[in-house]
Amino acid sequence: MATTSHPAPSFGASQARSEADNPSSLVMRFGPDKPLILESGRRIDHLQIGYQTYGTLNADRSNGILVCHALTGDQHVASTNPVTGKPGWWETMVGPGKPIDTDRFFVICSNVVGGCMGTTGPASTNPETGQPYGLDLPLITIPDMVRAQAMLVDALGIDRLYCVAGGSMGGMQVLQWAASYPDRVANALPIATGPRHSSQNIAFHEVGRQAIMADPDWRGGRYLAEDTSPRKGLAVARMAAHITYMSDEGLHRKFGRNLQDRDKVAFGFDADFQIESYLRHQGLSFVERFDANSYLYVTRAMDYFDLAADFGGRLANAFLGTKTRFCVVSFTSDWLFPTEESKSVVRALNAAGAKVSFVEVETDRGHDAFLLDEPVLFASVRGFLSASEGR
Amino acid sequence: MATTSHPAPSFGASQARSEADNPSSLVMRFGPDKPLILESGRRIDHLQIGYQTYGTLNADRSNGILVCHALTGDQHVASTNPVTGKPGWWETMVGPGKPIDTDRFFVICSNVVGGCMGTTGPASTNPETGQPYGLDLPLITIPDMVRAQAMLVDALGIDRLYCVAGGSMGGMQVLQWAASYPDRVANALPIATGPRHSSQNIAFHEVGRQAIMADPDWRGGRYLAEDTSPRKGLAVARMAAHITYMSDEGLHRKFGRNLQDRDKVAFGFDADFQIESYLRHQGLSFVERFDANSYLYVTRAMDYFDLAADFGGRLANAFLGTKTRFCVVSFTSDWLFPTEESKSVVRALNAAGAKVSFVEVETDRGHDAFLLDEPVLFASVRGFLSASEGR
Repeated sequence: MATTSHPAPSFGASQARSEADNPSSLVMRFGPDKPLILESGRRIDHLQIGYQTYGTLNADRSNGILVCHALTGDQHVASTNPVTGKPGWWETMVGPGKPIDTDRFFVICSNVVGGCMGTTGPASTNPETGQPYGLDLPLITIPDMVRAQAMLVDALGIDRLYCVAGGSMGGMQVLQWAASYPDRVANALPIATGPRHSSQNIAFHEVGRQAIMADPDWRGGRYLAEDTSPRKGLAVARMAAHITYMSDEGLHRKFGRNLQDRDKVAFGFDADFQIESYLRHQGLSFVERFDANSYLYVTRAMDYFDLAADFGGRLANAFLGTKTRFCVVSFTSDWLFPTEESKSVVRALNAAGAKVSFVEVETDRGHDAFLLDEPVLFASVRGFLSASEGR
Repeated sequence: MATTSHPAPSFGASQARSEADNPSSLVMRFGPDKPLILESGRRIDHLQIGYQTYGTLNADRSNGILVCHALTGDQHVASTNPVTGKPGWWETMVGPGKPIDTDRFFVICSNVVGGCMGTTGPASTNPETGQPYGLDLPLITIPDMVRAQAMLVDALGIDRLYCVAGGSMGGMQVLQWAASYPDRVANALPIATGPRHSSQNIAFHEVGRQAIMADPDWRGGRYLAEDTSPRKGLAVARMAAHITYMSDEGLHRKFGRNLQDRDKVAFGFDADFQIESYLRHQGLSFVERFDANSYLYVTRAMDYFDLAADFGGRLANAFLGTKTRFCVVSFTSDWLFPTEESKSVVRALNAAGAKVSFVEVETDRGHDAFLLDEPVLFASVRGFLSASEGR
């Protein structure tokens, strides 16, 4: 049994956020007959999924595009985010007349399991205790996120998606969709991603988690029940992560060693350089919109991702016999998911005999380029989606 | 007035460390007639410098080599560290028969101003209050560190150094020595360094400082007086920094996605991957030997370093007319101080008409390669120091 409602009634993303904060999100609820069975062997009963749709599903239900969000993203891909009041995170890409054209496609985007924007996550109420889950929520993996999305797509009556698209962790989900449900994905668009999380990326995530867990206000994950919030630790985690989303050369171009509001250094520990005040702002604004425990869960899901390991250690095995058509996109200055990671996906797809094109976009904007105004990316996505329509 | 004593009698590097912990270090004390005048315009009276020497100064005092340490290094370059009980940090490079051969050279290494191993730093007693300085210590810069080293070298009766050598922040000091005291440096060996701290590097330092200052046990810098210690914040700072000392490929070779003590993931937040437990160990062991406020001061000194800015914005001006001979060394996988930074130094030295050679060492060990067993580095240093002797 699955039911949907609007507006979203019953989740709290953080102690400061009530259901009224996310009024524009749809919520799909699954009854006890439809638990989410997790990779860990555990299960989530009473799963709910916060999601958004844009455009109109056509008569034969063949124009659905699932957009998968990144680590701290959410379902508000192409409309104002009700929590931040800012535009959707991919409005440059998704909308009427945009590369993912909502005049032609029915776009679905759902908050991942473990998240904090309406889908079951550590801030959700544990039905067994009536308290927030906290760390009692079972660990979530990328395959778990994708399995939940498939439940949503089923509930929406869509058998086969025209495309699954996403960047970064969203790209991991795209690869997982293509591997788990090859017959349900006509086109796959993994952007700025890789087939596994690298040792260095795990290391950066671990620093972020340690920063959160070092904050005494984290309270062993029970901060919601104890009416505190590990804001400082979460801000530090975000600051460290944010550096990895940019590039050395991009930072140099944007900030260099420019000082903040003065001609010479202040000989102190206040934000002296513009890059410092920029990072502090990133940290502080992040804690207003994101749940600290969700950050633990979702980073962990990325760390655990290793698609080849689930297919006998050979990535090509994940795509053997696939009919899905792929367009893989990377960015030259992305050092979080370097081009080489995308190339390893392309090699595996070729070895599996898949239809695959590869675009490496020249840019100094690092990993975050996938979210930004990158004409080559837009042209590639537009071309990829249009060409497939004529088949 | 300068006096030296041995063992070191009167500094505390952190609340847990007494003077007895660093018995093997020499200490040079400067009287009130010899204040250290700082770039900020402020001054340190009663400066003391913890240092070590190896080998014998020759009759004409011409065989002195000053080794400058990196961010968290100290004066124990080639003998057991009395705090950690571990070998000196550059025993592969410095010692009898080593590339910097203590059978031939008189090697001096001093703890930087702002440090916590015997030189005046934020954990030292403020003579005006009788309490630890904490944040009342004036900010320190790389030129300040070098000016203090020059006072030490003066006090040791050495007019001209045969060589100044160092990696990372030590390399910044080498460049500063060559710029500030061209007639006192016969040979300069800056390794894995750059002429300024980049925006990305400032960003990583800022994350570390924010992690320390977010720890409630930091107490606005007064943790020594209040008998606490911001251990968790300092450990997170070290973890974040440590990632930047290695390389993506080196981490992949050393750790990959190897799991810790088990065959499959634990679906939890304990250290699951080997890289996680390695990083946690780095963080925890660091807090045993380093003072949190010193970490703030010394990172800030690196951030402020911009040699060209002090010479009219043109790096070559820092070296005009120099007679110093240079050997600049970088490492291919160092992304903290990429080869391009060293090349910019080499270009400036060439533009200034200096004698300069440049070695780029091929390695996957990242920035930390300068501390490790790198045969090309050793051969280069040995050759550079030997060739100069024959002039």
